[in-house]
Amino acid sequence: MSKTRVALVGAGFIADIHAESYHRFVPDAEVVAVYSRTESHARAFAERHGIPHWSTALDESVARDDYDVADICLPNHLHARMTIAAASAGKHVILEKPLCLTLDEADAMIAACKANNRKLMYAEELCFAPKYERVRQLVREGAIGSIYYMRQCEKHSGPHSDWFYDLDRSGGGALMDMGCHGFAWFRWMLGPEARPLTVYSTMQAGLIHPTRTRCEENALSIVEFQGGAVGIVENSWAKLGGMEDRVEVCGTGGVVYADLFMGNSALTYSEKGYGYAMEKAGSTQGWTFTTFEEAFNQGYPQELRHFIACVRDDTEPVTTGEDGRTVLEMLNAAYHSARIGQKVALPFRPTVSKPIDLWLGP
Amino acid sequence: MSKTRVALVGAGFIADIHAESYHRFVPDAEVVAVYSRTESHARAFAERHGIPHWSTALDESVARDDYDVADICLPNHLHARMTIAAASAGKHVILEKPLCLTLDEADAMIAACKANNRKLMYAEELCFAPKYERVRQLVREGAIGSIYYMRQCEKHSGPHSDWFYDLDRSGGGALMDMGCHGFAWFRWMLGPEARPLTVYSTMQAGLIHPTRTRCEENALSIVEFQGGAVGIVENSWAKLGGMEDRVEVCGTGGVVYADLFMGNSALTYSEKGYGYAMEKAGSTQGWTFTTFEEAFNQGYPQELRHFIACVRDDTEPVTTGEDGRTVLEMLNAAYHSARIGQKVALPFRPTVSKPIDLWLGP
Amino acid sequence: MSKTRVALVGAGFIADIHAESYHRFVPDAEVVAVYSRTESHARAFAERHGIPHWSTALDESVARDDYDVADICLPNHLHARMTIAAASAGKHVILEKPLCLTLDEADAMIAACKANNRKLMYAEELCFAPKYERVRQLVREGAIGSIYYMRQCEKHSGPHSDWFYDLDRSGGGALMDMGCHGFAWFRWMLGPEARPLTVYSTMQAGLIHPTRTRCEENALSIVEFQGGAVGIVENSWAKLGGMEDRVEVCGTGGVVYADLFMGNSALTYSEKGYGYAMEKAGSTQGWTFTTFEEAFNQGYPQELRHFIACVRDDTEPVTTGEDGRTVLEMLNAAYHSARIGQKVALPFRPTVSKPIDLWLGP
Amino acid sequence: MSKTRVALVGAGFIADIHAESYHRFVPDAEVVAVYSRTESHARAFAERHGIPHWSTALDESVARDDYDVADICLPNHLHARMTIAAASAGKHVILEKPLCLTLDEADAMIAACKANNRKLMYAEELCFAPKYERVRQLVREGAIGSIYYMRQCEKHSGPHSDWFYDLDRSGGGALMDMGCHGFAWFRWMLGPEARPLTVYSTMQAGLIHPTRTRCEENALSIVEFQGGAVGIVENSWAKLGGMEDRVEVCGTGGVVYADLFMGNSALTYSEKGYGYAMEKAGSTQGWTFTTFEEAFNQGYPQELRHFIACVRDDTEPVTTGEDGRTVLEMLNAAYHSARIGQKVALPFRPTVSKPIDLWLGP
Repeated sequence: MSKTRVALVGAGFIADIHAESYHRFVPDAEVVAVYSRTESHARAFAERHGIPHWSTALDESVARDDYDVADICLPNHLHARMTIAAASAGKHVILEKPLCLTLDEADAMIAACKANNRKLMYAEELCFAPKYERVRQLVREGAIGSIYYMRQCEKHSGPHSDWFYDLDRSGGGALMDMGCHGFAWFRWMLGPEARPLTVYSTMQAGLIHPTRTRCEENALSIVEFQGGAVGIVENSWAKLGGMEDRVEVCGTGGVVYADLFMGNSALTYSEKGYGYAMEKAGSTQGWTFTTFEEAFNQGYPQELRHFIACVRDDTEPVTTGEDGRTVLEMLNAAYHSARIGQKVALPFRPTVSKPIDLWLGP
Repeated sequence: MSKTRVALVGAGFIADIHAESYHRFVPDAEVVAVYSRTESHARAFAERHGIPHWSTALDESVARDDYDVADICLPNHLHARMTIAAASAGKHVILEKPLCLTLDEADAMIAACKANNRKLMYAEELCFAPKYERVRQLVREGAIGSIYYMRQCEKHSGPHSDWFYDLDRSGGGALMDMGCHGFAWFRWMLGPEARPLTVYSTMQAGLIHPTRTRCEENALSIVEFQGGAVGIVENSWAKLGGMEDRVEVCGTGGVVYADLFMGNSALTYSEKGYGYAMEKAGSTQGWTFTTFEEAFNQGYPQELRHFIACVRDDTEPVTTGEDGRTVLEMLNAAYHSARIGQKVALPFRPTVSKPIDLWLGP
Repeated sequence: MSKTRVALVGAGFIADIHAESYHRFVPDAEVVAVYSRTESHARAFAERHGIPHWSTALDESVARDDYDVADICLPNHLHARMTIAAASAGKHVILEKPLCLTLDEADAMIAACKANNRKLMYAEELCFAPKYERVRQLVREGAIGSIYYMRQCEKHSGPHSDWFYDLDRSGGGALMDMGCHGFAWFRWMLGPEARPLTVYSTMQAGLIHPTRTRCEENALSIVEFQGGAVGIVENSWAKLGGMEDRVEVCGTGGVVYADLFMGNSALTYSEKGYGYAMEKAGSTQGWTFTTFEEAFNQGYPQELRHFIACVRDDTEPVTTGEDGRTVLEMLNAAYHSARIGQKVALPFRPTVSKPIDLWLGP
Repeated sequence: MSKTRVALVGAGFIADIHAESYHRFVPDAEVVAVYSRTESHARAFAERHGIPHWSTALDESVARDDYDVADICLPNHLHARMTIAAASAGKHVILEKPLCLTLDEADAMIAACKANNRKLMYAEELCFAPKYERVRQLVREGAIGSIYYMRQCEKHSGPHSDWFYDLDRSGGGALMDMGCHGFAWFRWMLGPEARPLTVYSTMQAGLIHPTRTRCEENALSIVEFQGGAVGIVENSWAKLGGMEDRVEVCGTGGVVYADLFMGNSALTYSEKGYGYAMEKAGSTQGWTFTTFEEAFNQGYPQELRHFIACVRDDTEPVTTGEDGRTVLEMLNAAYHSARIGQKVALPFRPTVSKPIDLWLGP
């Protein structure tokens, strides 16, 4: 059986991780094309990863018939348009988080994929991160009884790309960027029967990027689930010292703690410094937590491999457009909550054009 | 100069820690009497610690003139009565947390000590825990810039004594018992200019003590402070595996993490188990985190030494009745918030007879 | 290009890891046969891993022409015979550690592979463990200056299979079993120019398996290298609490610490226990260090993938029969040293029939 | 009962720690005088610690009758002379490690104290470090069965004072300076019945202080004890990144790990740095391990308090001159071993004038 052909739509930080992950860990797929709106990015990316075709023509690209899967790694505001175009052109779609900017867009994306009988995977890598999956399995096994509390933190000192800081393209700040991970992961841990009931959030802006963005730089969000469990998500673009991604789970029969970055690292002291310690780490002089196989430990290869298998075997991805839509609804509720100082009940269907408007006002 | 004479009022878990702390680390004090409502407790305590006098007559005790300081380690509902009685009889008072059950009580206690020109110390040991004090000093030094986020967790599997679970005597559960630590510590970290503005809380009951108490067993509470900092306090009576007391502080120039129990421990694997690993630890077979000098590491000796010095030098304690009152106000706001699902603004002066009524209804 | 066909020769603990590693991470290989001297093992193994052919006829197996690579996972005393047979029959050979029992065997194995123009890989997975490889790369980058000290520990409570404890089949105990890892890894870290000059070792027996074996259960071995670096290897079959594999490296410009098991784990407290925490862990009640992707983190898939690539591309493996031979020479020197209480200079060519005879006497 | 009067003989790094420890934790003692050969040191020290008398007349000082205890914190080559002078003048002596430079000196010191009926304490603070004492107690309790292996590391980037690097005044390098801790601590852990039988050592010089000293900068030393236990001591003056002091203990029923510095610290990331992280730490920018109560955690106050109690109660210290003598004998054996490449049996009585001569030649 021949390889499944993938086009990477986007050539930024996360597209690099996807390309590397396909290459090293997804033997049934081959990346045949890369698209970027910036010619130099597209060309350099194609060269770096040995991809035969590159182009800046995002919209026309979907008309080509030389690939099967569109892997969309674009800024958030382009997610809906590209997903719908790709699905309409008969491509399966795997899409980086968050799903899109509005619930209307979400519904249209899901409908387009359904109408064209194409698969839509919402790429939540935390559902594939092997350490977190180990945690989930032992919880499923009953190791810690019934979950009543979860915490998921994802914090760093701010994204590399400009578009994250531009609320029209991103739709929001640290919560929009990373809160989606925690919200999705809680649902993955609790299973589908545990609907999110309410969301409360508090947000802070102007911490270390005051001139660069009006977006929230730090957010604490509490979710209450049917069945009684509570989850707290902590997200920051103002946390110095490198990437933080960790979880705590408390149950009636025990607890589990897991840390994806510091918790998998070698501990290094270097007088003169070295090339790279971890994502968003600053200086490498002095003590650093040196990570390894970051993409693997975060679950990217496993996620992509899963989707390629879904496409080849015609099965449903474990994280679908509907999951992405629910997460987006929770994000909206969080922004609204941060404005009104109250927890917000779900379902919640605001009419704003991007989530952060619910906090800042349109 | 002769030693300052202390009477321990109470003979439970925390009184034991105080007695040991005076003995080993406060050479200017001597414990001359112990009071407990239960005769066997009082007698055994006096024998265990070599205290010359013991009695069950709590109220009469304050009339005796053979001591200078009443160190009150009683259940919460007795705090106000005993403090007022002791101060009126000319004793200086140091009082275990929380201050009392109502703001009226708090005001009366503060007034009684003022009227009698007696010192009242609110014994918040986290303001003296040496690792946390190290953290505070380096923050003061500017090591991490301006604080925008703090987290303090205190969690275990539930207190030893029955009265904690009886909401009429305790006034509340895990938050009342331990949330006071985080609330006080945030204020200590930020300094007096940073008034608490709002409190939000979410609570859970019936987790692992469903037949023993209606009190909250798990609580997450978010405090917003003047100046923009946010603190989250996490408290649990349902966290298995031993005591947890840790903090995270994020500032615009860095972060600090500190852990008082696991973070000071030796790591032990014992096939057959041994006597004691840490407060509220379960079995000592398998892996355990073996703590040492728990009282010292939590700040009890330093706290008591500070108060004895205040009495001897006629200076003000760093944590006063007013501090305890503010913390109590925050606790009240947290319970009310948990009921209404909104953050509650301070000042907040409810008229209930105990904080948990604001959540459960009277 | 079709897949490279592999026969697993052996069906024990390590063969399981190899089979899983090929299946999940080495797409260019397929395991087509498994051999074990025990019929039930061979059959069950084949079923478990979906391998089409199984047999108990180890020696005849090499005459079959339906595979290209013999992956030898047998007890140590069978390594030489099977390697020579396989190479003579035209198979490439990858061989689990240690290389064999005597230097004569080693020379014959290397010669047989050379004579038949077959590749021989000495499967030292620590040279592929991704965390250790990260350490090696940063050392190569100059992060910690010149290495002057290394420590590598591999310790657990003893192997599962009986043959390890039988010195005629194993050739030695904890050092023979696991000291080979440290010796090989030091050479990998320092590079080929740093020849091992001397070995000193001290050994202990009768610790927790006194009735099961006369082999050493604990060994400390110090190696001096040309250029001045020193390495210490610590190995144990008497270390309770699960697998330990960790390294420390000190250089003139810094240090690195890395831990493959505890240092990659989630930390779990389980009242009732659960299925599996890590290799050789005991009970899973109480606190445990829950590992994930153990084979990947130890480097097995990467090692096998490397050898398959060597076979397909006709390149030399990074760890060859010669490397295994040098490690065996160091093991011999260690046993001799433990007997005489002196460091033993290399080259060292004893005439015993197995290394442990140098310590215990033949 | 009046306070016991102490004279500090020496005004360097360790004398500062002693002075602070007496002041904060030893209420029964008062430091009444300080002696230093350097006038400015003596004066500044006295001012810093509020000590009423200072002087540069070391030898004359012992004739004064205004103190009871001489606490000797001088360079190693002065230990014997000052101890003998102080004891002869009727002072009790507590002496910083190592005991002295030769076994003849040791015997004379012990004899002088005996003859004058004065107490001599060998100040090994690791026997009082509270975390290590906790470890010792649980081992005594049987938590880990019979000890068969111990490891103690003390490593940093080199002492502050010049005399350490001058082998005539120090008698040796990293091993002389810090190996004494491990040797003493092993004996403390195993109890008096476990005599040290042999010592093996390997040493390295010229690592990061090649122009400053000929002393060994890194040493690994293995001790075999009667009863079969083995201990390894690792010492370095070439370990960057701050002080390391940690232990591992393996028994037939379990293991314990303890770390006095990193293992008691807060973890800090500071962009701009701060004043002090830990002993011998370098820059405080980036990640650091921030220690607290270093003297207390290393056992200095407890050690001094113990000796003052011994003096007041006329009891024997737990670590005596004889203990210091045995450690010195082990140090001698280690240096000799490093020269000859063999383990050296005890008793061992060389005739050199300082231990390092056994390695370097006189």
